[in-house]
Amino acid sequence: MSTFAQKLEKYATLAVRVGANVQQGQTVVVTAPVAAAELVRLVAVKAYEAGAKNVMVEWNDEELTRIKYKMAPMEAFHEFPMWKAQGLQELAENDAAFIQFYGPNPDLLKDVDPERVSTANKTSSIALKGYRSQLMAHRASWTLMAYATPEWASKIFPDFSPEAALDALWERIFEATRVNADDPVEAWKEHNARLARTVSYLNDKRYKQLVYEASGTSLTVDLPEKHLWLGGAKENAKDAPFNPNLPTEEVFTMPRHDGVNGVVRSTKPLNYGGQLIEGFCLTFKDGKVVDFSADKGYEMLKRLLDTDEGARKLGEVALVPHESPISNTNLIFYNTLFDENASSHFALGQAYPVNLDGGTEMKEEEFSRHGANSSLVHVDFMIGSADMNIDGITQDGVREPVFRSGNWALPV
Amino acid sequence: MSTFAQKLEKYATLAVRVGANVQQGQTVVVTAPVAAAELVRLVAVKAYEAGAKNVMVEWNDEELTRIKYKMAPMEAFHEFPMWKAQGLQELAENDAAFIQFYGPNPDLLKDVDPERVSTANKTSSIALKGYRSQLMAHRASWTLMAYATPEWASKIFPDFSPEAALDALWERIFEATRVNADDPVEAWKEHNARLARTVSYLNDKRYKQLVYEASGTSLTVDLPEKHLWLGGAKENAKDAPFNPNLPTEEVFTMPRHDGVNGVVRSTKPLNYGGQLIEGFCLTFKDGKVVDFSADKGYEMLKRLLDTDEGARKLGEVALVPHESPISNTNLIFYNTLFDENASSHFALGQAYPVNLDGGTEMKEEEFSRHGANSSLVHVDFMIGSADMNIDGITQDGVREPVFRSGNWALPV
Repeated sequence: MSTFAQKLEKYATLAVRVGANVQQGQTVVVTAPVAAAELVRLVAVKAYEAGAKNVMVEWNDEELTRIKYKMAPMEAFHEFPMWKAQGLQELAENDAAFIQFYGPNPDLLKDVDPERVSTANKTSSIALKGYRSQLMAHRASWTLMAYATPEWASKIFPDFSPEAALDALWERIFEATRVNADDPVEAWKEHNARLARTVSYLNDKRYKQLVYEASGTSLTVDLPEKHLWLGGAKENAKDAPFNPNLPTEEVFTMPRHDGVNGVVRSTKPLNYGGQLIEGFCLTFKDGKVVDFSADKGYEMLKRLLDTDEGARKLGEVALVPHESPISNTNLIFYNTLFDENASSHFALGQAYPVNLDGGTEMKEEEFSRHGANSSLVHVDFMIGSADMNIDGITQDGVREPVFRSGNWALPV
Repeated sequence: MSTFAQKLEKYATLAVRVGANVQQGQTVVVTAPVAAAELVRLVAVKAYEAGAKNVMVEWNDEELTRIKYKMAPMEAFHEFPMWKAQGLQELAENDAAFIQFYGPNPDLLKDVDPERVSTANKTSSIALKGYRSQLMAHRASWTLMAYATPEWASKIFPDFSPEAALDALWERIFEATRVNADDPVEAWKEHNARLARTVSYLNDKRYKQLVYEASGTSLTVDLPEKHLWLGGAKENAKDAPFNPNLPTEEVFTMPRHDGVNGVVRSTKPLNYGGQLIEGFCLTFKDGKVVDFSADKGYEMLKRLLDTDEGARKLGEVALVPHESPISNTNLIFYNTLFDENASSHFALGQAYPVNLDGGTEMKEEEFSRHGANSSLVHVDFMIGSADMNIDGITQDGVREPVFRSGNWALPV
């Protein structure tokens, strides 16, 4: 059995070899909490071994974020260091690889005025739009991975001691990211190949609509004519493969921004802006949220939906079987990277250009004409459950099972 | 007696109230090692309490620096993220306050090729020239303070356990920065007033030359006609006082770049580029180093002197009594912030524009014509000792004692 140190080193290897898949001569930008210094150093070593020219680190600290939200004057949340936003965009345009570790405390900002959080999110979304659009279009390689912190671990395992909770969370992260496999890099090759087969089947089918039925959910989702399903490894502008998320279990495409109708009920808490939104329902008409409710975090949900016009529409449709490694833990992770890979989900906001044939070359107007949504935000929320059935409607109107009782019903 | 936590909070207060002296509405930029997160959070709280608009942190990590020097390709050391350099310069031009904590491991880079270190230092000096010139001209408020790390502490106290060494170093830092005073902020007011009296005396005297005599040292240093002595608190472009160094015991001015003659011997190790240069002698003729030797670190010294033409000339002359709080610890700190405040010293390289009457308004050519040195570097080295005598030669040729047996001999 591997020690924690050995597993952490394998995790760093996955970040470099599978996640960002660092190439000779690349600059690598690591974003991480200051507490993750040990892991970041391992990543730097692996990145230089893979031929990186330089490893830069953008550190962050949640406690400083909380202090700022509590104490800074309101005008601070309307400002963003543009030199940093431009620097990141330049790096993305010049073939840098991005590795981000995150493990937010789900309750970090629960006592903070939501007005401050939504203002800050909007400010940073505007400032970082150029940089993020590079990543969303898969021009640069990037990967998002988890870093276990005591606060996050204790939220998932409230009855454990802090040490036991942290150990337990790391073990779930290692298991979900295949660190425990004999050869984790090889295990990811096989997993990516499996996801690619499902993607290929769905792209051949080219359904014009998906029909969702579950407790609290009854929804139709039209897909653009030129929609593309994706899953697992992607390719950057230089055709180098990378995995934007570790773990990842989803296959996903984009809906028509004007073609969503009915009601959908969330099945897991959504951690947005450091606060939890729970038990919420969205009613759609012609693509737009026209009504909504929430058991908890209503104000934050309202602010999310009010960010801009596109925040009330869907930008992503993702399918994840209820029988999946993360889902089978029966845990709520309060962390989208994990919860979205345990559950079918949608995203409010910006659609990925890569989910539309030719989308990465389109200007916003053309992108929209083909049915794609645009917004400053892209926020995933979970809707999958054990009782969910999904049907696909083919171009000539035939209705076929895609999911039955929460799991794949395709002949692949 | 205060606990460590109480002292650390007072230290944070000093950084904000005395060091940078944060004003209402200012952006505060903190530079710190990731290990200093606890202190940085305290500083953020104190800064917001003082009215700061925003606190930004530029984190660093020595171990990542070491990994880069060991593993990155040579071309990495010729590159600098210009967006960051420009961002820092913009912040300095727009009245940000800068608080830097540092506590380098003196032996960090001892196994690293000096070529890499000097290349990286030169690259960053060129990139950061605009930013640093703002700080050197005192347009923005800034302060440099120590942060104790286990590696640094064990270098000073090699016979102590790691924990005892760290405790002992923190206690020396607290003592030297007057954290242990009943009212540290008030204690700094008094100390600044004392330094101001000495500065005032020397500025009235307007010596044309200083004559240094000690074991291994026999040197004359001409001072520019318009030289200004400074010490303790300075004033930024908006006339707000700040203390660039905590601790500080020195009063200092600039020499004529063409008026240094004789030999000077270093009396403490110099930590430059992560390596130690020890027991070195410099021979000057008409301002320029024409010969040099070193018991240890000769190669690094050579690279420092070869940075550019100005690196072979002096840019600062500083007087510190041998009987001073830091000197009396009888410790070698292997850290310029402490060792320079325990010992009279010089700096090789760039002169401070503030040490010349009207200097901050001068272009480089005029600055030079008045006798000031320019260089990419500014590196202090210690030359004070218990047997050092210094005389001042007045404009009309009278020779007066300034230091006797290492201590002040002025009638103030």
